[in-house]
Amino acid sequence: MKIVIVGAGFGGLRLARKLSNKPGFEIILVDRFNYHQFQPLFYQVATAGLDASNISFPLRKVFQKSKNVRIRLAELKQVMPEENKIITDAEEITYDALVLATGADTNFFGNSQVERTAFPMKSTVEALQLRYRLLQNFEKALTVTDPLALQRLMNIVVVGGGPTGVEISGALAEMKKYVLPKDYPELDFSRMNIYLLEGGGKTLASMGEKSSKQSQKYLEQMGVKVLTNALLKNYDGDRVMLNTDDCIESSTVIWAAGIKGNIPNGIDKALIARGNRIKTDRYCRVSGYDNIYAIGDLAYMETPKFSNGHPQVAPVAMQQADLLAGNFRMIERKSNPDKHYEFEYQDKGSMATVGRNRAVVDIPRPKLHFGGFIAWMIWMSLHLMLILGVKNRFFVFSNWLYNYITYDQNLRLIFREFDKHEKSDGA
Amino acid sequence: MKIVIVGAGFGGLRLARKLSNKPGFEIILVDRFNYHQFQPLFYQVATAGLDASNISFPLRKVFQKSKNVRIRLAELKQVMPEENKIITDAEEITYDALVLATGADTNFFGNSQVERTAFPMKSTVEALQLRYRLLQNFEKALTVTDPLALQRLMNIVVVGGGPTGVEISGALAEMKKYVLPKDYPELDFSRMNIYLLEGGGKTLASMGEKSSKQSQKYLEQMGVKVLTNALLKNYDGDRVMLNTDDCIESSTVIWAAGIKGNIPNGIDKALIARGNRIKTDRYCRVSGYDNIYAIGDLAYMETPKFSNGHPQVAPVAMQQADLLAGNFRMIERKSNPDKHYEFEYQDKGSMATVGRNRAVVDIPRPKLHFGGFIAWMIWMSLHLMLILGVKNRFFVFSNWLYNYITYDQNLRLIFREFDKHEKSDGA
Repeated sequence: MKIVIVGAGFGGLRLARKLSNKPGFEIILVDRFNYHQFQPLFYQVATAGLDASNISFPLRKVFQKSKNVRIRLAELKQVMPEENKIITDAEEITYDALVLATGADTNFFGNSQVERTAFPMKSTVEALQLRYRLLQNFEKALTVTDPLALQRLMNIVVVGGGPTGVEISGALAEMKKYVLPKDYPELDFSRMNIYLLEGGGKTLASMGEKSSKQSQKYLEQMGVKVLTNALLKNYDGDRVMLNTDDCIESSTVIWAAGIKGNIPNGIDKALIARGNRIKTDRYCRVSGYDNIYAIGDLAYMETPKFSNGHPQVAPVAMQQADLLAGNFRMIERKSNPDKHYEFEYQDKGSMATVGRNRAVVDIPRPKLHFGGFIAWMIWMSLHLMLILGVKNRFFVFSNWLYNYITYDQNLRLIFREFDKHEKSDGA
Repeated sequence: MKIVIVGAGFGGLRLARKLSNKPGFEIILVDRFNYHQFQPLFYQVATAGLDASNISFPLRKVFQKSKNVRIRLAELKQVMPEENKIITDAEEITYDALVLATGADTNFFGNSQVERTAFPMKSTVEALQLRYRLLQNFEKALTVTDPLALQRLMNIVVVGGGPTGVEISGALAEMKKYVLPKDYPELDFSRMNIYLLEGGGKTLASMGEKSSKQSQKYLEQMGVKVLTNALLKNYDGDRVMLNTDDCIESSTVIWAAGIKGNIPNGIDKALIARGNRIKTDRYCRVSGYDNIYAIGDLAYMETPKFSNGHPQVAPVAMQQADLLAGNFRMIERKSNPDKHYEFEYQDKGSMATVGRNRAVVDIPRPKLHFGGFIAWMIWMSLHLMLILGVKNRFFVFSNWLYNYITYDQNLRLIFREFDKHEKSDGA
């Protein structure tokens, strides 16, 4: 059975690993990048606490010992369900079963001006670009003479009070406190402002009441200006207009306000559900197709317990991958379809970190809430466990230890490509 | 005394550190990058053995405790000797003394076609671009059907048999042997060829006879095809034409065949000497100017012992920085100019590494030669010592240990920017 998996995120990668070296399966794993990205730590790459390589794991390394998994570094261009094949930018690949695990990308809700000017943070490369911009702003600030231009360079606006927005705001506040004044003694960092805009009434709305309150308290203690019920109406690259008609001068807006599923071309548009996701049944099968599946952030599945779909988080993707691996093995053994597993999400809890010794953790069963240092330790341990590869784990741990002891994120490096040496890609 | 230093390589950085927190000096250090680059290990970044960050050290971190060194991330546009000022892309800076330490860049000897198509390796960013290209070649090779196109993707031509050329050829040979066949089991690596073209009669011509012979023997043992007396006549991106009228099909040419000094605009062209360097006297003072100095790869200084100028290596730059720091302090104390130090290069030796357990070391006094494992250990220890910062040293050591034990360079990551998210720089 030839299975093509598109996307090597938490879901796609796990499925490929579960089916690796299992008899009867031929797996082709397609991804735009040649590495697995550990999304939960993008914000630490952006704030120079971790190296991009620390949270990136080469796919070919994962499958070096696999006899049945092949990898293709390519972009999916088109699914052709009638012909059981996909077209990438390099070739056509046929399949017996297709698993779409292409995840989600930033949703700018149709505002193309914001899309052009704001920084998303949904890939390692985007996190690096944000890092470069943050550092370059302060370099520029040293020679700028116009006070308004200076203020714009010193202000940062984060849009979206979910985990990503909270975590990056906290990390920026720590940079402002511990690192930047030492690096740029010529600048007055009391003039630097970090704004967090949240459209709803509270930060971390998907977590419990305690976590919401605590995260906002932590942020405010750290000097982040948290604005709730605040929507970004527009942004021209210099000035953020709010729904309240207030405005904030800033040359850097970080957009963490929404995501949308990466729906491949060739999938019936009638199947698109809330959040630009693809409707599936409880076997992760895309409605209306026999042999096309969708898992993770891209999939929209309703169950009695989750009547509005599931949260777009890594554990859902990983549990769906586990389910699908089991069902594929049953299909391969030609078991009775009645016996196939139906998906039921086991919510193990959620967490977010705000800064040193400050995190929040909610666990549903038994219902528990942790804050502060204990939550922060839980957060770090769990993330270390989830990172792929002993070497990456070691380097992340070493970096964290170093940062904790020295109060210093010292990967403040701008590896920008220069136009001068830009290579054409025509090999 | 206000000293402007342009370039934070081995020479410029060392001078700034020597004058840091010394009374009477105000230092401005200007560099295009916000980090010091450890050039000797570029080739390991290109071959995925080290992270770019491992060999890059943020300049602001070096001078966090300095009260008199300011840093400017800027490109030097023009020197105006009559007005004692320089113009960068961001501002004008006046000086009492100017030290040019802008180093050298790749010399394509006027062949613009080669410049467009070959890969230089004179900056961290260039090393990263080469890494991305090497990896992408094999990804492409998986789907290419034309045998000639496949052969081009599998061949690599290194031009220049000096230390850089020898070191990158050796590292590529190890990738071919230990890493690539595991990563790309679908490709036949007996068809991969690594050519090293050397225009003269031997590799490592600047070192002793034993080192030259040994390095060539090592390379050939490792499977590198060493072609001596072989000059690249032209390269169109697909096919290398040699002086012998032979040709090699290859989509990747690495250019390590020559360097030229980065002479800033505004310096009298009559002062340009061999290798596009600036003539200085033995006080590192640029001939004809009172308060402009040049050190390191950019400088051309004749002494009785070095009647054709000095080798363009880090120790010369560092010793010149030491000399200049001493002389500046005498100038500041208004000592008699007769007492100023004259430069005399102390050659401590030279070395190059070819691969695991294979290196060559020459020491002039007492005249000694080491090869093999001992030389390799000397090479590693010395490079570890020279790397800036405890943390970088620790990470380089950890990576080396990991690579040595596992036979695996596992930073095979392509962090390319995608056009889609390319940001305009108009903050």
